[in-house]
Amino acid sequence: MTFKPQETDQKAIATLRNFFVCDPKDSHWLNRDRFVLSNGHACILQYMMLVLLGYNLSLDDLKHFRQLNSLTPGHPEAGHTDGVEVTTGPLGQGFANSVGLAIAQKQAAAEFNRDGFELFNSKTYVVLGDGCMMEGVASEAASLAGHLRLDNLIAFYDDNKISIDGDVSCSFTENVSERFRSYEWNVLEVKDGDKDLKSIYDALIKAKECKDKPTLINIRTTIGFGSREQGTHTTHGSPLKDDDIRQVKEKFGFNPDEKFVIPQDVADAYRKYGEQGGKIHGEWKKLLESYGEKYPKEKAEIERRAAHKLPQGWEKALPTFTPDDKEAATRKLSEGVLSKVSAVLPEMLGGSADLTGSNLTRWSDATDFQPPATHLGDWKGRYIRYGVREHAMGAIMNGIHAFGLHIPTSGTFLNFVSYAIGAVRLSALSKFQVIWVATHDSIGLGEDGPTHQPIETAAALRAIPNLDFWRPADGNEVSGAYKVAIESFNKPSVIALTRQGLPQLENSSIENTTRGGYVLVEQENADLTLVSTGSEVVICRDAAKILKDSGIKARVVSLPCFTVFDAQPLEYREKVLPNGAPIMSVEAYSTFGWGKYSHVHHGINRFGVSATAGDAYKYFQMTPEDIAKKSSDVVKYFKKFGSSLESPLVVESKFLQNIK
Amino acid sequence: MTFKPQETDQKAIATLRNFFVCDPKDSHWLNRDRFVLSNGHACILQYMMLVLLGYNLSLDDLKHFRQLNSLTPGHPEAGHTDGVEVTTGPLGQGFANSVGLAIAQKQAAAEFNRDGFELFNSKTYVVLGDGCMMEGVASEAASLAGHLRLDNLIAFYDDNKISIDGDVSCSFTENVSERFRSYEWNVLEVKDGDKDLKSIYDALIKAKECKDKPTLINIRTTIGFGSREQGTHTTHGSPLKDDDIRQVKEKFGFNPDEKFVIPQDVADAYRKYGEQGGKIHGEWKKLLESYGEKYPKEKAEIERRAAHKLPQGWEKALPTFTPDDKEAATRKLSEGVLSKVSAVLPEMLGGSADLTGSNLTRWSDATDFQPPATHLGDWKGRYIRYGVREHAMGAIMNGIHAFGLHIPTSGTFLNFVSYAIGAVRLSALSKFQVIWVATHDSIGLGEDGPTHQPIETAAALRAIPNLDFWRPADGNEVSGAYKVAIESFNKPSVIALTRQGLPQLENSSIENTTRGGYVLVEQENADLTLVSTGSEVVICRDAAKILKDSGIKARVVSLPCFTVFDAQPLEYREKVLPNGAPIMSVEAYSTFGWGKYSHVHHGINRFGVSATAGDAYKYFQMTPEDIAKKSSDVVKYFKKFGSSLESPLVVESKFLQNIK
Repeated sequence: MTFKPQETDQKAIATLRNFFVCDPKDSHWLNRDRFVLSNGHACILQYMMLVLLGYNLSLDDLKHFRQLNSLTPGHPEAGHTDGVEVTTGPLGQGFANSVGLAIAQKQAAAEFNRDGFELFNSKTYVVLGDGCMMEGVASEAASLAGHLRLDNLIAFYDDNKISIDGDVSCSFTENVSERFRSYEWNVLEVKDGDKDLKSIYDALIKAKECKDKPTLINIRTTIGFGSREQGTHTTHGSPLKDDDIRQVKEKFGFNPDEKFVIPQDVADAYRKYGEQGGKIHGEWKKLLESYGEKYPKEKAEIERRAAHKLPQGWEKALPTFTPDDKEAATRKLSEGVLSKVSAVLPEMLGGSADLTGSNLTRWSDATDFQPPATHLGDWKGRYIRYGVREHAMGAIMNGIHAFGLHIPTSGTFLNFVSYAIGAVRLSALSKFQVIWVATHDSIGLGEDGPTHQPIETAAALRAIPNLDFWRPADGNEVSGAYKVAIESFNKPSVIALTRQGLPQLENSSIENTTRGGYVLVEQENADLTLVSTGSEVVICRDAAKILKDSGIKARVVSLPCFTVFDAQPLEYREKVLPNGAPIMSVEAYSTFGWGKYSHVHHGINRFGVSATAGDAYKYFQMTPEDIAKKSSDVVKYFKKFGSSLESPLVVESKFLQNIK
Repeated sequence: MTFKPQETDQKAIATLRNFFVCDPKDSHWLNRDRFVLSNGHACILQYMMLVLLGYNLSLDDLKHFRQLNSLTPGHPEAGHTDGVEVTTGPLGQGFANSVGLAIAQKQAAAEFNRDGFELFNSKTYVVLGDGCMMEGVASEAASLAGHLRLDNLIAFYDDNKISIDGDVSCSFTENVSERFRSYEWNVLEVKDGDKDLKSIYDALIKAKECKDKPTLINIRTTIGFGSREQGTHTTHGSPLKDDDIRQVKEKFGFNPDEKFVIPQDVADAYRKYGEQGGKIHGEWKKLLESYGEKYPKEKAEIERRAAHKLPQGWEKALPTFTPDDKEAATRKLSEGVLSKVSAVLPEMLGGSADLTGSNLTRWSDATDFQPPATHLGDWKGRYIRYGVREHAMGAIMNGIHAFGLHIPTSGTFLNFVSYAIGAVRLSALSKFQVIWVATHDSIGLGEDGPTHQPIETAAALRAIPNLDFWRPADGNEVSGAYKVAIESFNKPSVIALTRQGLPQLENSSIENTTRGGYVLVEQENADLTLVSTGSEVVICRDAAKILKDSGIKARVVSLPCFTVFDAQPLEYREKVLPNGAPIMSVEAYSTFGWGKYSHVHHGINRFGVSATAGDAYKYFQMTPEDIAKKSSDVVKYFKKFGSSLESPLVVESKFLQNIK
């Protein structure tokens, strides 16, 4: 059996032309079809296609595959390689991202399309393998996609029956097609994906025509097809042997002595395909222009959102508070922010993992994003009922961001952000703006107990590069945290919020908060500094009052966001956490990570307890009285170091400045 | 319609008696049936049953529900409340735990049962709700349980259609029964779970008779049945109103004026049921005795393992190394340990999330744990093919530990332990011995790039209470890490291992390693201390050699496990990280958390790169030359502090010792 590459490629192109619309010269065109390679380890295929189609990637880039600083890293990275929509490789993520892309597309189409102006009608295509299929995040996403009837989503399941452990029959014998039918997907099967291009073509036609359901095309393939090792896991992770490569090339009609050569007719055909996409894009631009004549406001809005510009003065919507304002849980204050801000920022696309009434993530006049036939909402809705699916929610938010017109915000308990941390790290790596509304942020959640009380979660999130973990202490800090999060187009934020009420603090402000840390209570010639976050800040403030009565001068610093604070100039930071007196951190979490800022770290280095918030705070010695007592011990003990005591932050920062 | 409680209860007991065997006076009896409440928020039901059956829990304990230090916390906690097998509440976990319990039961039965001696024949029962059903971890576990044909597992799906967001039709409309059939489960349906006890009974009979498949009994119920609010989400999280409670009690034939009262006939019936279980247990003890006469070695082995005692001298199996031994990747050294140790510790039950050939977790003569009909292994097998299902793997290992006869060890890449962190934290909270073999532990994994290179994972794991995160630097440290992990019955361990080769170090030893940290290279009047872990220790050693040539005396400390080191006496710790000279940490991770031990922290506070390990280390300035250069800068800068410079660890520890 011999394949003629020309014939095969041209058939493939003909197939693609009918289905996949892109403009390789403008990979950010809003109405492009999206392609996601969820089994990202196969990325050389994606890179090859990008080169052939004429994206900003060259044959030379392919020669540097998986090398330092190349445009062709070991797994596809969004923002790094032209034409790569999302970062994939960690299995299951890309598939869930594609559900997010499809949601964003549906929402944008409903919001902006008008009679005669179908501005948004793209599809999302995703390829996934056995590994993705086994991951829970993909199951969650598939179930939600079926519920949402995302008929703009077409998934190709590369059913090659091989994973790293060998034949998947050693661990994976479920009936995938039936499983997806149970999720209410349209499932099509292609028995011979190696050779039967006609059936793939027919399946694509059917997928495109299918209404009200996403489609899974289950394609039985042979891994390493054509190799002597085809159908075995040796073709999964290792390169083919030289003589095997030779015979594969011969089999498919290539010159076995040539490497990195694209036959001219193939190059021409792909280039032509890319150019055709460019023409379709050109037509779309004209459509947008005439749309703009009839709907100037909507057009301007699309362009503003695509450029990731916020409306002038949007931040005036952020509530501010004075100490006279009443005590409130920061989750409640967050609800206030979301209600105000969602009104001026139509790009906000909210949701919650089945904790709406607890996370308070749904603004009062929100409509649910739902298939209209459910009568529970419509496609224009901006509130997503994710169900109890935190991991998929995180990955779907990444997809929503990647579409380019929305700011996804979603809620769960802080402790359960950890269920989604695989997706959270990819938000950060991909430089995607995703906002987590993480309520019930400490032992202060009370009786639900240690299974729900985060202890280590803040450390886990603070250690992720390019992510802001916020723990606001009152209303102004909540507004400040949202301000930075909403203005940070290139990074995700997790905003940790209390279940319990907190007073509005003197000296807090949005501006102070946006510096990540600031002095809440100043004292000249202070005996110590208490540095704290969130619900423990007011405890420190009250401890300082108690200390004052015993003649101890305590400063209080609020540090709602380590990373934003770390980015301030050293002159500012050393004013906040200066040399000369001991610094004690106070936080109802593991003390892990506080060594950077403080000499003594007061926290909870064990799991929590099921008790009222008040009892839990007493039990863990987190009352103002406890803090005052320990503070006075600190002052006594650290006397011996005198005023020469260095602030840990200042020591390291000055050294780093010095060697620059 | 009026229920007579006596009648209902007695029917319920009759039903149970045929199916659930337990001895309330000995909740650790090895052949008990296991019960798991995966929707742990409904735990008051479980606590009530434990009281009624005569476990070590009282009516008084129920009165302290969700109060500080009570035996009845907000979610069930293993090891805290008599009769609670696993810690549940984080949704989906309990269901996956039950798969682990069933696996352990199958394995133990195959290993120890003999003709005429069916010592192990218990079942695992699990109740789960809509929330569990939506979680990916449950999907993963269900797929694996179907593959493994775990016919000793019976799951009750409480299909009440209500979650916190209200009617699940807003997010969860899949066909659960069909989904489980696609996983190859036996699915039975009960249409009226509120009243039709007969159908539940019949389903149980069928479930028990079913061979070769786990069973899901899908029971349609009404949440808050009997309440005026029945069928709504208001009965999900909030207590019923007083007058509603009255009418419910009246409806079911109770005295509405009484609280915390168990009618005598009900108490008698349950007590009798419990006593019957005790009798069955008594018969089993006799069976075990006569088994012991015929199979004394096996009986002794069961008893040893149940008591969590290791065989005398087991640790002699641990390989040791000298600097003359050849360079090796620590994942390879781990394979050596597993091969040796698995031979002397038959309780070790290994596995990997589809990375067997990469994690090197399968000892050479291992048999897979598989249904014999697959011809891929047998029930006695001690190697589990988990598939690409990290989260379920973590939760299943918790279930395996909970069964009581095994030490579960499983592999994945360190970066993907984060997919499972929801389960990892429950291992720690539950005090369960679970060992993660976490290979490919840094940028040293090379070309797979930043999607696979852990940066923040060590910090996330180090911050979890009651968990040991190990990062051994050579063969002796690998053996030492396993020694502590295997001897730590009450906590989980994550052992981070390299893909790349490392030399065997002078001064490393198993004994040194078991202290968590030790001096690898000592120097009198040192100018600085370099403290490091894993693959960076040898880099520091080589940096110290370079520094020596320029007259700088550098000590080198290896700190493979923070938590084990922290537990050493202060006199030891201050010898390892003493006052008097600057301390710089060197680790190819986020520096987050190092402030506790060092003044300057050299690490990688951004995501990694796709490149060879060598290129990546150069790129991130992690070569001996880079470290030597920065070290000499440190020595120069810190001169001004002189020998009065305090070690951060010593400062805080001495203060804490002082206030004790």
